[in-house]
Amino acid sequence: MNGWTRKMLRVDLSEGKTWIEDIDEEILKKYLGGRGLGAYLVYTEVPPETDPLGEDNILAFCNGAMTGVQIPTGGRSSLSTLSPLTGTIFDANTGSQFGVRLRWAGFDALVIKGVSPTPVWLEITKDGAKIHPADELWGKEIPDTVAALKERGTATVGIGPAGENKVLFASIADEKGRSYGRGGVGAVMGAKNLKAIRATGKEKPGIADVDIYKFVNYEAGKMVTASPRTSEGLPEFGTSVLVNLMDWYGVLPARNFQQGGYEHAEEISGERLKDDYLQKRGACWSCPIGCKRVTKVGDEKGEGPEYESIYALGSSLDIHNFDTIISANYLCNRLGMDTISCGATIACAMELEEKGKLDTDLAFGRDDLLLKTVEDIAYRRGLGDEIAEGSKRLSERYELPEVSMQVKGLEFPAYDPRGMQGQGLLYATSNRGACHLRGNMLGPELLGAPKMLDRHASSGKAGILIVIQHTNTVIDSIGMCKFVNFAIGDDFFARLMTSITGVKYETQDLQLAGERIWNLERLYNLRAGFTEEDDNLPPRFLNEPLQEGGSAGHVVHLDEMLEEYYRFRGWRVDGIPTEKKLMALGLAELEMEQENA
Amino acid sequence: MNGWTRKMLRVDLSEGKTWIEDIDEEILKKYLGGRGLGAYLVYTEVPPETDPLGEDNILAFCNGAMTGVQIPTGGRSSLSTLSPLTGTIFDANTGSQFGVRLRWAGFDALVIKGVSPTPVWLEITKDGAKIHPADELWGKEIPDTVAALKERGTATVGIGPAGENKVLFASIADEKGRSYGRGGVGAVMGAKNLKAIRATGKEKPGIADVDIYKFVNYEAGKMVTASPRTSEGLPEFGTSVLVNLMDWYGVLPARNFQQGGYEHAEEISGERLKDDYLQKRGACWSCPIGCKRVTKVGDEKGEGPEYESIYALGSSLDIHNFDTIISANYLCNRLGMDTISCGATIACAMELEEKGKLDTDLAFGRDDLLLKTVEDIAYRRGLGDEIAEGSKRLSERYELPEVSMQVKGLEFPAYDPRGMQGQGLLYATSNRGACHLRGNMLGPELLGAPKMLDRHASSGKAGILIVIQHTNTVIDSIGMCKFVNFAIGDDFFARLMTSITGVKYETQDLQLAGERIWNLERLYNLRAGFTEEDDNLPPRFLNEPLQEGGSAGHVVHLDEMLEEYYRFRGWRVDGIPTEKKLMALGLAELEMEQENA
Repeated sequence: MNGWTRKMLRVDLSEGKTWIEDIDEEILKKYLGGRGLGAYLVYTEVPPETDPLGEDNILAFCNGAMTGVQIPTGGRSSLSTLSPLTGTIFDANTGSQFGVRLRWAGFDALVIKGVSPTPVWLEITKDGAKIHPADELWGKEIPDTVAALKERGTATVGIGPAGENKVLFASIADEKGRSYGRGGVGAVMGAKNLKAIRATGKEKPGIADVDIYKFVNYEAGKMVTASPRTSEGLPEFGTSVLVNLMDWYGVLPARNFQQGGYEHAEEISGERLKDDYLQKRGACWSCPIGCKRVTKVGDEKGEGPEYESIYALGSSLDIHNFDTIISANYLCNRLGMDTISCGATIACAMELEEKGKLDTDLAFGRDDLLLKTVEDIAYRRGLGDEIAEGSKRLSERYELPEVSMQVKGLEFPAYDPRGMQGQGLLYATSNRGACHLRGNMLGPELLGAPKMLDRHASSGKAGILIVIQHTNTVIDSIGMCKFVNFAIGDDFFARLMTSITGVKYETQDLQLAGERIWNLERLYNLRAGFTEEDDNLPPRFLNEPLQEGGSAGHVVHLDEMLEEYYRFRGWRVDGIPTEKKLMALGLAELEMEQENA
Repeated sequence: MNGWTRKMLRVDLSEGKTWIEDIDEEILKKYLGGRGLGAYLVYTEVPPETDPLGEDNILAFCNGAMTGVQIPTGGRSSLSTLSPLTGTIFDANTGSQFGVRLRWAGFDALVIKGVSPTPVWLEITKDGAKIHPADELWGKEIPDTVAALKERGTATVGIGPAGENKVLFASIADEKGRSYGRGGVGAVMGAKNLKAIRATGKEKPGIADVDIYKFVNYEAGKMVTASPRTSEGLPEFGTSVLVNLMDWYGVLPARNFQQGGYEHAEEISGERLKDDYLQKRGACWSCPIGCKRVTKVGDEKGEGPEYESIYALGSSLDIHNFDTIISANYLCNRLGMDTISCGATIACAMELEEKGKLDTDLAFGRDDLLLKTVEDIAYRRGLGDEIAEGSKRLSERYELPEVSMQVKGLEFPAYDPRGMQGQGLLYATSNRGACHLRGNMLGPELLGAPKMLDRHASSGKAGILIVIQHTNTVIDSIGMCKFVNFAIGDDFFARLMTSITGVKYETQDLQLAGERIWNLERLYNLRAGFTEEDDNLPPRFLNEPLQEGGSAGHVVHLDEMLEEYYRFRGWRVDGIPTEKKLMALGLAELEMEQENA
């Protein structure tokens, strides 16, 4: 058996049933696997009107053809669902070893539906899935949960109290905090009464052409070793190296995006993290880059914080006590919450307080309240219960929706789009909301990778963004990490896919698959009621120029970029894919079936 | 003395005078050197109404800060002039060691004006220039000329009979055929009665920060060794590896662009060249890539042919006798002619014959006439004398201008734009006419470097083309080779420039310099009377879809791309840079001086 295993493990928690199905190889060829396969499954099996926290939603853990294959960053896997936070089709992606073990158990996908009447955990082996009672595990934090299920040759992910309590940005994570992080996938799992999943597997995927695979893999390794970003920058400093750089560019968000740049950036920088907290480096399975930081505060050790978490739990809250930020990051990981949405929603609450809408002590700069607030959210206590609903709902409750920094309900990552026009377009058009991982313009707009574009130019950004969106979709679908894309590109992905699956992929085929998946996700969101009105940004970014720093004076020129974007995508002016485009992508028939269903 | 030598050697052949001048460092910072410095010199010293073959035109041999520095591909140099073929500002670029020796003699630039009353050659040493009689050399082919001046520690370039006879596409070359190739720079030299230039130099340029330079250079070397294109593709097959690939894509021109793809491609391919003709590989100074081919036909050895020459002297003439093509390539090199314009103008003559406009035996497929025709051109005998004027003039003479495949008078290179929309836009907008070296879209449209774009899409191409045009301008100006850009990009160029010159360059600074130079060239051409009407393509590409092959059915959608291009460039709808753009580039003052001059 080469490349894909072509096997999908199905679990119905309502019925207490598990079974194995074949996956049609044509579907794999067309949607690649991972995010692409997950999009297909959600699209065909979960009508958009489904209650995301009800029994008809699915958790589709999907591996790529590279997941578990010994290539640079071959340790990524994907999870697709209908998000309770955004109401969009959603996929989260992790470097946890869980995906690798699931693949080694012989499965390209694990699809869970239904709701168990009592708490359970799932055991996955090559023979299938077994459902076990989890009453003893319920209530535990994630590391304790994983520890209780620990066994040689296994990998486990689970939810913490946040997922159990259906916090709308709860995550699913392993003991290191490597997470299917965003969109409230943990709440979906919690709603299913599913505490954890343990995968045992030893059999590596077959390789269609071992000689070519070895050669291309060797060449890919050379590129990773040679590229300064993958051999020096990320290994040495991790993602937190961005704090000072983004501050310099004036795009490091502070005080809920009321500032671009933070006067205390140096105190919460990657350099400081290295000097004062770093214990050692870490890496996901089969990753030669190793961007992970193992750090220590007091007696507690953990991974992180990533750049995004430093923004969300630090500068965006006007908190620069690095001990507290790092502890809050650990706490989010243990309780099972997305650090970005957690921090960003706290920032929203703080601005509501500042604007006199919310009567609370939780004000900007109150580092003394941060850890308690994070706990309150996970356990849904007091104001924490309201924050647990995410910033969109919170700000609407207090009638000041403009202080919620989100798109389609998903909170912003750590790049102020007023200093990066293309990034603004990305946020507005991403199918899962304000996300930097669906086509990050950090490379072309700030780092010069693959080409340096004028970050303040809006004309012409649509063209390159669309290509990057497709490449990112491909990476999510084949099971690799976006960081490897600093060293190797579409040509390598095509040659790896060809040698591993035995299906001939040219670079163009992968771009086309990426476009197909992107359009499928779009079709789902349109059916869910999203319109071009939702391809938008909070008014702050469109109307209020930054006052200081490296991006002062700028706002996002979204309308003109969006018009270009729709046109370049072959969509109508209202953002709906044309029939011609759907025909070209081989999606017309599928869409018609859904419309008639 | 770090980085640039800041010295320019001046020669006035009319007066028989030579002298050394300082170069204002601000000019070097702004225009980098090489092509940028040359553009500045032609812009400020040669009014567009100047007779290109008269005494007021200059030959400005300009080095970049990298020329002669031991870095990957640090052996390139540039030559700027007013082209007699196109009437545009023009620069040609070579990997000949001449530029390296000129730099080691201590000069960033050698600027020659005037016309010598009798044939002369120039000797360059660290002390300056000496003018020597060249009556004995006149009439010689280039290799014999160089041989006559050969001395240890020197490098010589010269013209052959074609330059002496002012063939409008005559080149300046060294004994290996490494040429300042296009635009008739050899005719300018011939018109000056200058046969050859020999440079002696031993002193390598100073390095501002040796530690950083060593580190960045080491990192750059790693990237070149790791990249499959620079470590495998180009070293193994040279540029001729493109023959089969371009044929497959349907963009290999045949029969003067009446076909995209050639039924005999295999017989004239890089693979065939390697099997049947290759003697050994060659490389320019300090180049680890080594794309040059040393080949042999009968008793004659030489370098090449490159992919472009195989198209121009082969498929475009419907000639697939590879012996003949290679011999014609050698002959062009010995006589000193650009193989592209030479072959393309012969193709134009052949189509004139086919269309009944020209009564000659020189028909498509007549490989038996090729070598004689090439000689006739160089010596301006019979029909050769008419072909020597280039395809634009030839086709106009026979009242069928549409069979001249040129833009702004420069003949097309070997990529049919009907299969590469962005390449069509490049040809139309390049400041020196139809050229693949001013922003080649081969990478993004066919090879996936740095990103794979849809080659048939026209929307969105302008944005990326402009960035590539700027990067290419930078590479031409700093003295490196475009092939190294497969391995290292703008960030490396910036770090190399900073460490070598001591002037802090960020990636953005280089892009801005590239844009500045591009706009300066544009301003010159506008003053010379070119308008947006000249940003055009031969009607064949706009109106006649290819009939067969991988690009069948397509024409170039130029108008919509051009509108986008002007807009993205900050130019008016008539292609004239706005005042605002010139201010932003620091060109407004210079342009005003010229207008008032």
